[in-house]
Amino acid sequence: MYTIVMDCMGSDKGPSVLSEGILRFVKEYQDVKIVAVGRKEDLKTLEGNERIEIVHADDVVPMTAGPLEVMRAKNSSMYKAITLCKENNYDAVCSCGSTGGFLSCATLKLKTIEGIERACLMTQLPTKIPGKTVTTLDVGANNETTPEQLVQFAMMGKIYTQKVKGVENPKVYLLSNGTEDEKGSPEIKEANKLLRESAFEGFEGNVEAREALNGQVDVIVTGGFTGNIFLKTVEGVGKLFSNMIKEAFYLNWHSKLGYLLSKKGFDDIKKTMDYKETGGAMMLGLNGIVVKGHGSSDAKATFSTLRVAYNMAKVNVVELMKEGVKGVN
Amino acid sequence: MYTIVMDCMGSDKGPSVLSEGILRFVKEYQDVKIVAVGRKEDLKTLEGNERIEIVHADDVVPMTAGPLEVMRAKNSSMYKAITLCKENNYDAVCSCGSTGGFLSCATLKLKTIEGIERACLMTQLPTKIPGKTVTTLDVGANNETTPEQLVQFAMMGKIYTQKVKGVENPKVYLLSNGTEDEKGSPEIKEANKLLRESAFEGFEGNVEAREALNGQVDVIVTGGFTGNIFLKTVEGVGKLFSNMIKEAFYLNWHSKLGYLLSKKGFDDIKKTMDYKETGGAMMLGLNGIVVKGHGSSDAKATFSTLRVAYNMAKVNVVELMKEGVKGVN
Repeated sequence: MYTIVMDCMGSDKGPSVLSEGILRFVKEYQDVKIVAVGRKEDLKTLEGNERIEIVHADDVVPMTAGPLEVMRAKNSSMYKAITLCKENNYDAVCSCGSTGGFLSCATLKLKTIEGIERACLMTQLPTKIPGKTVTTLDVGANNETTPEQLVQFAMMGKIYTQKVKGVENPKVYLLSNGTEDEKGSPEIKEANKLLRESAFEGFEGNVEAREALNGQVDVIVTGGFTGNIFLKTVEGVGKLFSNMIKEAFYLNWHSKLGYLLSKKGFDDIKKTMDYKETGGAMMLGLNGIVVKGHGSSDAKATFSTLRVAYNMAKVNVVELMKEGVKGVN
Repeated sequence: MYTIVMDCMGSDKGPSVLSEGILRFVKEYQDVKIVAVGRKEDLKTLEGNERIEIVHADDVVPMTAGPLEVMRAKNSSMYKAITLCKENNYDAVCSCGSTGGFLSCATLKLKTIEGIERACLMTQLPTKIPGKTVTTLDVGANNETTPEQLVQFAMMGKIYTQKVKGVENPKVYLLSNGTEDEKGSPEIKEANKLLRESAFEGFEGNVEAREALNGQVDVIVTGGFTGNIFLKTVEGVGKLFSNMIKEAFYLNWHSKLGYLLSKKGFDDIKKTMDYKETGGAMMLGLNGIVVKGHGSSDAKATFSTLRVAYNMAKVNVVELMKEGVKGVN
């Protein structure tokens, strides 16, 4: 039996929508217990389910809350969720609330594993190959990253891709402004050198952003600032195109008919680009499984977030990380 | 009469395709003279035109050439083109060859203008609003950028957008991982502070990559490494979507019919995302107009590249930059 703690107050869609996702999840996964943290009166739909425990929390951390605010908000659902996970040694903790607050609080409470200086935020991005995603990290936990930390991110990304996603020999790349080893920011250049010198298995060199989603790349390693720009550009351009496609079909009666005739393919595009399917971002490098759901998570996105936490718990990703990092060091 | 020097050997589509673009351009713009630099035998179609001067150059700089290689390749079309521009005080120089080589050589030969420490690479990106582009700089000239240099880029981007694009009060933003002033890499945070303190007119704060192309932003300011990742992600995701759209329409006979019925709107999307329309990237901050065309420029792209150079020459962008930078300093 796995126990996942869920901060139910974070999503701007509200706790009732989120609760729906929890109910669906416990129905589909019989070996899971959910600890739902939030205002009791908002979580009534969860009552009476024997695999759901409701823990009351008075406060909600605002979306804009920084690390300090969360650490001080001891009665908030977020703080309580993390603390419960830590004190009871539960398998995972999830929240859709303030990214910065959640990650800092989780880092302070759970601490990084040996050999990892800084935790990082990892997500899965769609690629040209239908159904294939690429592990991308750090997408925003750190504003500054040293070359050594980039090497640690490469290790963690590789381990996750191998052990959780089941890719046998993941191809690991550094995101850079050129494919040549000597191209890049000072940190990227140095990280490239370190990975080359250590003969890091699976390291294929640098990849440009233009080719990063071509389906040939399994792990994209980047500093948190650039990674965040990268992730959000993918999202932004995806949204731009989705809007343009919609407008193109809404142009006149025959374009609308055109949509009906080609609907299948466009539904596939929508599915490929749907972030609700991927389940948000994961925090790697901590003594615990920490999953950050999308800020506007609906039932489906909540389900995906829980599934990610579950899958990570099932393979015991924290132990795998510890062993993997030790092995390479 | 404006004189534009064109390195005719850079495009991987070959000099004959590029020549076609030149011929079209001189036909449409009667007040332009082109100095075409390249292997004489490859530029035969340009012969006999009274507004085209052919200058022979034996060598071609390879696409992968770095700064040093170009500076040493004194018989190359690229080196000759830049030198001709400088020595004869011509209005502009264009090349589709190695970006790094072209930019370094141009910087060394033409020098930066007063008040600008480092030249930067600027391009126009499509936005949500049809026909509206956003000035984006630096997209790759510098791997490391100081806060002061970012402020200089902001100035130049604003001046270009005002004077060349004719936007009255351009809204200038720093590309960051959060909209709050205190979010970002150390350089971005400091640049934000400097722009706030100097009450830089038009500075609106930080913008996230997700919102950067929403049509409300006129100028995006970023360091060259991040800017390059940003630009290439836009291109990459654009390509990803274009492929997906194509595949969606090719799925079966009725999706193909669907395409015919909705063709108009999708042709508009294609046009919006077509980099051949924008004319490549411009080097700002130098004592001269330097335009870098796409590496695989065809006749249309060459035409656009020349048009950009022409428009910049017409408003005397270098003088405007000098005055503008002085004015703000």
